[in-house]
Amino acid sequence: MTEAIPSKYPWIELEELLSDGDADRVRTLVASWSDSDRTHIASHLDSGALALLLDFLDAEVGADLIELLPLSQAADAIEEVEPEAAAEILGEMASDERVDVLAEVESKEREAILDVADSATAEEARALLEYDADTAGGLMHTEFLSVESRMTVANAVESIRRAADEVAQYSIQYLYAVDDAGRLEGVVPMRSLLFEAPETRLDRIILRDPIRLRVDDPLQAVHDVFEGAGFLGAPVVDDTGVMLGVVERTAVDDATIEVAEADHMKSLGIASGEELRSMSSFLRSRRRLAWLSINIVLNLMAASVIAAYEETLRGAIALAVFLPIISDMSGCSGNQAVAVSLRELSLGVVRPGELFYVLGKEAIVGILNGLALGGLLAGVALLWKGDPILGGVVGAALALNTLFAVSIGGVVPLLIKRSGWDPALASGPILTTLTDVLGFFLTLSFASAVLV
Amino acid sequence: MTEAIPSKYPWIELEELLSDGDADRVRTLVASWSDSDRTHIASHLDSGALALLLDFLDAEVGADLIELLPLSQAADAIEEVEPEAAAEILGEMASDERVDVLAEVESKEREAILDVADSATAEEARALLEYDADTAGGLMHTEFLSVESRMTVANAVESIRRAADEVAQYSIQYLYAVDDAGRLEGVVPMRSLLFEAPETRLDRIILRDPIRLRVDDPLQAVHDVFEGAGFLGAPVVDDTGVMLGVVERTAVDDATIEVAEADHMKSLGIASGEELRSMSSFLRSRRRLAWLSINIVLNLMAASVIAAYEETLRGAIALAVFLPIISDMSGCSGNQAVAVSLRELSLGVVRPGELFYVLGKEAIVGILNGLALGGLLAGVALLWKGDPILGGVVGAALALNTLFAVSIGGVVPLLIKRSGWDPALASGPILTTLTDVLGFFLTLSFASAVLV
Repeated sequence: MTEAIPSKYPWIELEELLSDGDADRVRTLVASWSDSDRTHIASHLDSGALALLLDFLDAEVGADLIELLPLSQAADAIEEVEPEAAAEILGEMASDERVDVLAEVESKEREAILDVADSATAEEARALLEYDADTAGGLMHTEFLSVESRMTVANAVESIRRAADEVAQYSIQYLYAVDDAGRLEGVVPMRSLLFEAPETRLDRIILRDPIRLRVDDPLQAVHDVFEGAGFLGAPVVDDTGVMLGVVERTAVDDATIEVAEADHMKSLGIASGEELRSMSSFLRSRRRLAWLSINIVLNLMAASVIAAYEETLRGAIALAVFLPIISDMSGCSGNQAVAVSLRELSLGVVRPGELFYVLGKEAIVGILNGLALGGLLAGVALLWKGDPILGGVVGAALALNTLFAVSIGGVVPLLIKRSGWDPALASGPILTTLTDVLGFFLTLSFASAVLV
Repeated sequence: MTEAIPSKYPWIELEELLSDGDADRVRTLVASWSDSDRTHIASHLDSGALALLLDFLDAEVGADLIELLPLSQAADAIEEVEPEAAAEILGEMASDERVDVLAEVESKEREAILDVADSATAEEARALLEYDADTAGGLMHTEFLSVESRMTVANAVESIRRAADEVAQYSIQYLYAVDDAGRLEGVVPMRSLLFEAPETRLDRIILRDPIRLRVDDPLQAVHDVFEGAGFLGAPVVDDTGVMLGVVERTAVDDATIEVAEADHMKSLGIASGEELRSMSSFLRSRRRLAWLSINIVLNLMAASVIAAYEETLRGAIALAVFLPIISDMSGCSGNQAVAVSLRELSLGVVRPGELFYVLGKEAIVGILNGLALGGLLAGVALLWKGDPILGGVVGAALALNTLFAVSIGGVVPLLIKRSGWDPALASGPILTTLTDVLGFFLTLSFASAVLV
């Protein structure tokens, strides 16, 4: 590859420079890439190459790169870097993003990194790691500007000026007034500092009793607090009212996007956490098989219904053509109802207890679509096989099973939610097993009654 | 129902008060609900009842309620309200949210509302409606503070103070400096006003050549601009550099969440836009059938492979038990690969052109999982039916079809993306049709070669 021809795969060019140990050219090359190129190219490196790259870059540039990567890949790379270098890179990151990465790092490597990190950072990270990622504690950062109510506006402006560097990456919309024990007393909007005389004491402009989050509030509750309001950050307090940090709206939005995308992945069978193609094929295979092996057992259970009717099938072999259609179409109809329930649960439009409301609404759609699809399949069977009884059997089976699938599909996510499981994960397999069992049973028992 | 017993269904209580025309008690009741109760309760009303409710509420309270509802439901209700009342309610909303609702309103009702709205609002709304919802123009609001570079810090603070009410709902982090023609020259961070002497001229503290969005930049590009940066809003300009509005990070995040959730819905078969159970059952049935009827045609195509092998099946009826399993398991394996590709496309980790990279990565997993699942199914068939040849046929068919499904599943979303379709929508049906055809063919052709 000569210099003049741009390489088609820039990660190969990068890997060559890394193995040559050409640090200067590595830095120049990385500097020439846009953010989206960095994400794209670095994602094609395995964790060894990525660790080598981080060794060659300044800690600050490395931290920027780490923030552009999917979390699981960032953590894999950090595990491979020497603990001292890892601590330095993580030290350049914001407290909440640092902890997100550390939470994904294996505990042995994590301890090694925290042992060499500066003691304040390590202590803080250890405290933040105690919180679940999807709680206010897991979403917050610990950098904020606290003031005391006896300070003046001029004091406050001075304290902002001094802390400007440290807090520049956050949106400082408020100063937080705390008492001697660190308990949150109120907030001072930055904007109001503009309008007040420098000698005004803060206690005259403090907004008392502000909205606050409890450190163990779950993501959904945090999201709801922000949903109706215009503020960009909310203070987080512990049981005794001591202020611990600030959750920013952007952290809540990012976590909500992650949950929505993870739900989508789970309903397609990526159930064991994020999978990226930079991970090892054996790990990817093993994780996918965990999900597939549950499904094959459920499939065998459903198919055993067919096995019980082999004599019926032998007498009406054309049914074998229609069984997969009835199975697949019922699954599609049921999944549509699952989708609407998942969406309404996420919007807060329906609550997990409203089984009869959902059942009533879905049953109407189930009857309409059952008649339409059953009639269509009956007509196809009649035209194709010239057999009105066969048409009647498969049409009636699909019609009834559609009604069942749509009704059950609506309530399955609510029932799973009530039981504390994850509806995005479990709804699909449970639904399709139930609809397969009933669909096979209806088709074959109708057939054994009238066809054979 | 007596006053003492709290009604289980508060929307029924509300509907009774609405039909009694008891405006005071309606207002008191609504005021007693939290935001999440309002979303939940109002979502159970049909659009007629919701319109009646809006008539009873002050425009400002009505606007708050509208903002809590799913867009499609908000639009349906606005269509039912008298145009004058609708214009008043919409007048209380922010420009971007107003346009989001108007875009969902039928064009006849929309024109009636804009005809009676105040002319500046109507003109602005008509202009904003021209932009696609998922572009910078569709995401921006038009309220912002513009200043001229010859103004002093004191002038700027004064202009903020005057406009405080109008812009209070937005995060004002910047003032925007424009020239006489309205072209964007630079930005002035609010925070810097705190640190400068009142008589300082703005042109000394303006940041020139700021990041700016083009009005037709798509959501993904807008998202990428915010991704790497800390700012909360970015100015939007037209072709000539004239500043049109500001896109806030929260609007980008909200739109991104909507896209992620809509992708999830689409892959479960909710393909014709948002569906809520407050919509009419006939509309819901019709929209779902549009998707289902495509699927039944694809299913019939796949099943016709079985029909071509009826004689083979008659001779080995146990195969009929395994055909739905092979169909379903291949679909599951393929969908996992689809999921990883959708995720990597959304993260920017893979690009639509990288077919061979994805194919290579997936083929390894396909071989591993094909061997595992094929071996498992062969063993089950052998134990269950006591027939090693049957076991060999179904095992080999599932193994090969898993390799095919996983490989094809990885590239199908990339190919669909390249062709300009929507991969979340089309990947599933295309994948399962291909895997069904090949799965049925492999099983039955192997069987006809060795079993019958």
